[in-house]
Amino acid sequence: MITTDICIIGAGPVGLFAVFEAGLLKMRCHLFDVLPQVGGQLSEIYPHKPIYDIPGYPMIKAQELIDNQMEQIAPFKPTFSLGERVETLIKQDDGSYHVVGSDGTLVHCQVVVIAGGLGCFEPRKPELANLEVYEGRYVHYMIKDPERFRDTDVVIAGGGDSALDWTLYLADVASKVTLVHRSDSFRGAPDSAEKVFNLAQQGKISLLLSHNLVALEGDGNLKEVHLTNKQKEMVTVSADHFIPLYGLSPKLGPIADWGLNLDKNAIEVNTFDYSTNVERIYAIGDINTYPGKLKLILCGYHEAALMCQSAFKYVHPDKKLSFKYTTVNGVNAF
Amino acid sequence: MITTDICIIGAGPVGLFAVFEAGLLKMRCHLFDVLPQVGGQLSEIYPHKPIYDIPGYPMIKAQELIDNQMEQIAPFKPTFSLGERVETLIKQDDGSYHVVGSDGTLVHCQVVVIAGGLGCFEPRKPELANLEVYEGRYVHYMIKDPERFRDTDVVIAGGGDSALDWTLYLADVASKVTLVHRSDSFRGAPDSAEKVFNLAQQGKISLLLSHNLVALEGDGNLKEVHLTNKQKEMVTVSADHFIPLYGLSPKLGPIADWGLNLDKNAIEVNTFDYSTNVERIYAIGDINTYPGKLKLILCGYHEAALMCQSAFKYVHPDKKLSFKYTTVNGVNAF
Ligand SMILES: Cc1cc2nc3c(=O)[nH]c(=O)nc-3n(C[C@H](O)[C@H](O)[C@H](O)COP(=O)(O)OP(=O)(O)OC[C@H]3O[C@@H](n4cnc5c(N)ncnc54)[C@H](O)[C@@H]3O)c2cc1C
Ligand SMILES: Cc1cc2nc3c(=O)[nH]c(=O)nc-3n(C[C@H](O)[C@H](O)[C@H](O)COP(=O)(O)OP(=O)(O)OC[C@H]3O[C@@H](n4cnc5c(N)ncnc54)[C@H](O)[C@@H]3O)c2cc1C
Repeated sequence: MITTDICIIGAGPVGLFAVFEAGLLKMRCHLFDVLPQVGGQLSEIYPHKPIYDIPGYPMIKAQELIDNQMEQIAPFKPTFSLGERVETLIKQDDGSYHVVGSDGTLVHCQVVVIAGGLGCFEPRKPELANLEVYEGRYVHYMIKDPERFRDTDVVIAGGGDSALDWTLYLADVASKVTLVHRSDSFRGAPDSAEKVFNLAQQGKISLLLSHNLVALEGDGNLKEVHLTNKQKEMVTVSADHFIPLYGLSPKLGPIADWGLNLDKNAIEVNTFDYSTNVERIYAIGDINTYPGKLKLILCGYHEAALMCQSAFKYVHPDKKLSFKYTTVNGVNAF
Repeated sequence: MITTDICIIGAGPVGLFAVFEAGLLKMRCHLFDVLPQVGGQLSEIYPHKPIYDIPGYPMIKAQELIDNQMEQIAPFKPTFSLGERVETLIKQDDGSYHVVGSDGTLVHCQVVVIAGGLGCFEPRKPELANLEVYEGRYVHYMIKDPERFRDTDVVIAGGGDSALDWTLYLADVASKVTLVHRSDSFRGAPDSAEKVFNLAQQGKISLLLSHNLVALEGDGNLKEVHLTNKQKEMVTVSADHFIPLYGLSPKLGPIADWGLNLDKNAIEVNTFDYSTNVERIYAIGDINTYPGKLKLILCGYHEAALMCQSAFKYVHPDKKLSFKYTTVNGVNAF
């Protein structure tokens, strides 16, 4: 069991900034995110795009903002469970909470902060026979540890940046990489596409354009992926692993079952401390709603600051909260 | 008369960010500040100090943040009346406002935004005879245009950074500079103090330490400043201008008379749009109060964003407000 002061669900920009504000008040944080990396929508959907409305940054790329935030919170040494979805909150007799992740991680905390954005990012799944049979061990919608695929035969499916980037990466790791795409051109970055075409020409990967997925086949272990080509002929590719990368779409997920007041997939909160209808549970960032709510990063930052002032009483019930400027007080680690 | 969409009172970090959020919604801004420069508390009180709680900046110096914000709002071409205090708001029959400054500047606008921080920065005045007689033309609490002092005799009083910095600057401009300080050491930066001591040794300025101010004398024009030295003997220094620099302290000032609901020198607002009890008048940043209020820069940014969404209906009553991400839409000037 991990023991911490605040358990934050979601490691997007708002969850990350909450670590900073909590740290100033001497509260430790553990964060969960279902994605294998921190950064929420910014790192998952638009890492290379410029943002113009972060105050004090005429322009900053999304991933750079996340990198800076990670540097900003480093003094407070947050801990992370990445690639793990929070499933359940269990209230303890003393008011504190147990937070349980999909891989069994158990966190004991005084306060739960839901910074879940648009919800859990969940994979868009392709349609083909036997997908469910091989999910988990042989079908991978996200790649947490690429080493897992060393010296195996993998089939990647998709036409966006993830499919291209992982094809390029795994070309050096797997014994054989086949990239399958239903169209004959890619949606991903043109220079990644060019690199993929080059690898295919050199025979280092196998590229199947204008092919459609039909079925997975095996005997418990995955063995083959069956496809059809443009002429509707059957094609079979040997495969130890199947990696469909059709992007992720957010779903509210387990959060819906925690007894919180919801309004159109968002959690209703007060604006004086961003608390929910359940004591010790707060919601900040895109996941919450209140009159005037804007789904902007800068608004989530403000919500994180006010939330921490309120959460303090549960973490340090015996201490008086005193408000100090960072300029005057500095950033003191624990 | 200047015609604009939003008139912002106070050019601190929050007033400046409001220009950006307004610009995204195609609303133009004019700003007033009683100080001769933009930046509010940051530029006036702690320009060289590091701030640690601006999201995405592990550390940024106060003046650097203001400089970055000026760059961020440049595309929206705000206009400024600096060194001018807003005295009066006059409601027009159609609901719009006339905003009147202390130098007579008149601004016609649809919406008034008070981003006045802790209030108008007003000078701390020294005690000496005839001060009021020479105020305005011969006594200067802030320096807007140093050229005004070219080839004149000036007496500067004070022991902080402003007194030291202006002594160094005016040494090359005025025909004679005398720096008077009641103690024999300075509060300002040690290296500025050293430079001042060097100039005095070289005979380029005259330095009167442990001297107390007694009176101003003249015949309509200022002629002399009378002082006493450590031994309580009278000392007389010739002077065309007297520049007491004892720092500025904020006072709510004229804002108190505008019919707004106040709570301990702060303006009460709603948290859904940061509007006051008077239609078309908003208050954001340190000057406002509501349950949970934190006097933090990052909170003022959020308030500015929500305020602009609400102000839009007065500026563009015929248009529908559509919310777009800057990443998607960019920053389009007018
Ligand atoms: C294309 C695009 C452009 C944008 N441009 C701008 C812009 O210019 N300016 C701006 O301010 N905003 C912009 N936004 C919006 C901005 O990205 C969001 O406001 C911001 O990401 C919200 O941050 P967050 O931390 O609240 O949530 P998110 O970034 O959504 O992060 C939430 C995280 O919580 C995780 N999560 C949810 N439920 C669980 C669970 N049960 N267990 C584990 N993890 C969970 C999710 O996987 C996710 O990683 C843009 C968004 C998009 C898509
Ligand atoms: C030493 C110190 C350290 C600080 N450290 C931090 C920190 O680390 N983090 C943080 O978030 N905050 C910090 N703060 C607080 C921060 O500076 C304020 O929250 C911030 O300045 C508020 O911005 P603002 O734009 O609302 O007001 P201000 O910066 O106060 O600007 C308001 C402006 O309005 C002008 N004004 C008022 N009335 C009138 C009028 N009638 N006519 C014309 N002009 C008028 C004033 O002259 C002033 O320039 C610190 C403050 C101090 C003093």
